[in-house]
Amino acid sequence: MSKHPVINFGILGCADIARKVSRAISLSPNSTLLAIASRSLDKARSFAAANGLPTDTRIYGSYSDLLDDPDVDAVYVPLPTSLHIEWAVAVAEKGKHVLLEKPVAMSVEEFDLIVRACERSGVQLMDGTMWMHHPRTARMKEFLTDGEAFGQLKAIHACFTFAVGADFLKNDIRVKPNLDGLGALGDIGWYCVRAILWVADFELPKTVTAQRGPVFNDAGVILSCGASLLWEDGKAATFNCSFLSHLTMDITAVGTKGTLHVHDFVVPFQEKEASYTAASGSWFNDLVTAWVPKPSEHIVNTDLPQEALMVKEFSSLVGDIKVKGLKPETKWPTLSRKTQLILDLVKRSIDKGYEPVDVVG
Amino acid sequence: MSKHPVINFGILGCADIARKVSRAISLSPNSTLLAIASRSLDKARSFAAANGLPTDTRIYGSYSDLLDDPDVDAVYVPLPTSLHIEWAVAVAEKGKHVLLEKPVAMSVEEFDLIVRACERSGVQLMDGTMWMHHPRTARMKEFLTDGEAFGQLKAIHACFTFAVGADFLKNDIRVKPNLDGLGALGDIGWYCVRAILWVADFELPKTVTAQRGPVFNDAGVILSCGASLLWEDGKAATFNCSFLSHLTMDITAVGTKGTLHVHDFVVPFQEKEASYTAASGSWFNDLVTAWVPKPSEHIVNTDLPQEALMVKEFSSLVGDIKVKGLKPETKWPTLSRKTQLILDLVKRSIDKGYEPVDVVG
Repeated sequence: MSKHPVINFGILGCADIARKVSRAISLSPNSTLLAIASRSLDKARSFAAANGLPTDTRIYGSYSDLLDDPDVDAVYVPLPTSLHIEWAVAVAEKGKHVLLEKPVAMSVEEFDLIVRACERSGVQLMDGTMWMHHPRTARMKEFLTDGEAFGQLKAIHACFTFAVGADFLKNDIRVKPNLDGLGALGDIGWYCVRAILWVADFELPKTVTAQRGPVFNDAGVILSCGASLLWEDGKAATFNCSFLSHLTMDITAVGTKGTLHVHDFVVPFQEKEASYTAASGSWFNDLVTAWVPKPSEHIVNTDLPQEALMVKEFSSLVGDIKVKGLKPETKWPTLSRKTQLILDLVKRSIDKGYEPVDVVG
Repeated sequence: MSKHPVINFGILGCADIARKVSRAISLSPNSTLLAIASRSLDKARSFAAANGLPTDTRIYGSYSDLLDDPDVDAVYVPLPTSLHIEWAVAVAEKGKHVLLEKPVAMSVEEFDLIVRACERSGVQLMDGTMWMHHPRTARMKEFLTDGEAFGQLKAIHACFTFAVGADFLKNDIRVKPNLDGLGALGDIGWYCVRAILWVADFELPKTVTAQRGPVFNDAGVILSCGASLLWEDGKAATFNCSFLSHLTMDITAVGTKGTLHVHDFVVPFQEKEASYTAASGSWFNDLVTAWVPKPSEHIVNTDLPQEALMVKEFSSLVGDIKVKGLKPETKWPTLSRKTQLILDLVKRSIDKGYEPVDVVG
């Protein structure tokens, strides 16, 4: 027990995504959902009932009350982005570890304040980018880092879109400037940028140039946009994200010797099995009427869904801090910060009339 | 016989691609390879022998000699791009129909001269974009034009790359400014642009903006580049083409209700069977842990390879002109011209420091 402590989670708010993560906490062997909080006790009670939470789950009618519970080790924060700065800092200042939904903040400056609060308290900070924890992700990375099979990285394209309905466009927090004010860029562009940086081993590009033609709502929130990233060594990436196009979720990575395709990188088509396609050393047959070799599909199974693996990884780091006295893992907030930085620069490039903006890490 | 005449082909030059097309002419039921020409008789003889052409194939030691053969109905022109203007016009002026390799010319102005020569002579002009003739292409188009299944087109991404060796980079005509001077943009960017226009029903975009970071060789020929296209109605496309990245051949088209993926659009993985993936009305399950429905793969078989179907279609149009007195089909040169126009504008945008350039059809 002391070697593998079970981490007690609290959840702030009853966002839709909290349903998925509360289940993930239950599925994760080193985690338990101890408490949930909403701004109203009724809403929290309804959430607990609707999601079949154990009857001993502690229910709080205010976020502060949950943070005052000394038994809560870690807090999952799925609140609207504009509230992250307030509540993630509050969680850290209570000495509790922070699992923070993406986008992590409204800007990298805000995120830096959250990071510093976590550092001061010695708590773990990780963002909620679930696909990073799928075993497929590690398998794809093996391919991408295989010099013989993939070669030198040259180009990346990422796309994440889904077509929302009229109600979303009118009422969802992701179209409200004072809530998830980064709109589609923050909500789903985040994944594209994370994917691109992940493929590029988190080397920051030299410049970010927004594509012309982003779509805004009347309140100025981005509903659709894209950008190009260019690195010092000449490799390049493009992405597009949109609330206005059918569900699409692609990473294409092209090296000198290989190509990777994945079409469900954020949420796999199915929970327990995911695949990707890899081609390596492909060329044409003699008359250029076929490929030799053809790309191959690789299937990766997982017992736990990726969101439970995320919780498990987070709880494992928290456990190491609690039991072994280790320091928080800085890798995760570093990845969060780089992702947020690129989002900020896409916005800045849009504001500058689609001029390239330099990336200063 | 008079209803389905067999068209007699001549081929100018012994380019590598002529091997594939000479076979295609043999496979096409309404076409026969009558004659080949090279600048040297020996080279033409070697080509005939190496490709098992019938012993009665007429062999010419000059392009002009072939054009003087009154039995030649149609000429396939796989010469370097810079020679198209001279020889395609010469073919047309001899009253012979023109099957012209891509890119069709060094510029749209040059291509217009070829078009006018063909119009004056009343001969058919078609470019050698083989994949347009694969039955899969028609099937994909059915999906893309299905308002219920695909909805309104929002975004397109196309990619065609292959990684060439040192010999190609030094000696191939596609890296020589005085031969295929449009480099990767002309050779493979052509396919990306054609694919984008094809998805967009050949509606021209409003602006073309080259992506930063194209790669040139010492002679100023493009080895790698990309661009963004933006339409009046807000739909957008990106593409990248490169001689420096592993073989990749993608079209992604995203509508409001559906998504199309194809990964071998130019040359199918295999000759007689090709597939594409379509998703329609996909959304997430309740907990956002899977897709409902998942994308589906659609397989399309073909008895004749796409290049033979291209020859067959071309010969059919030529036959209609010869036998029925029909006029040449203007659709094909119109598609060629639009493709060439966008290539020109990508180059112009690069020359203008990646500024957007307006498309004036």
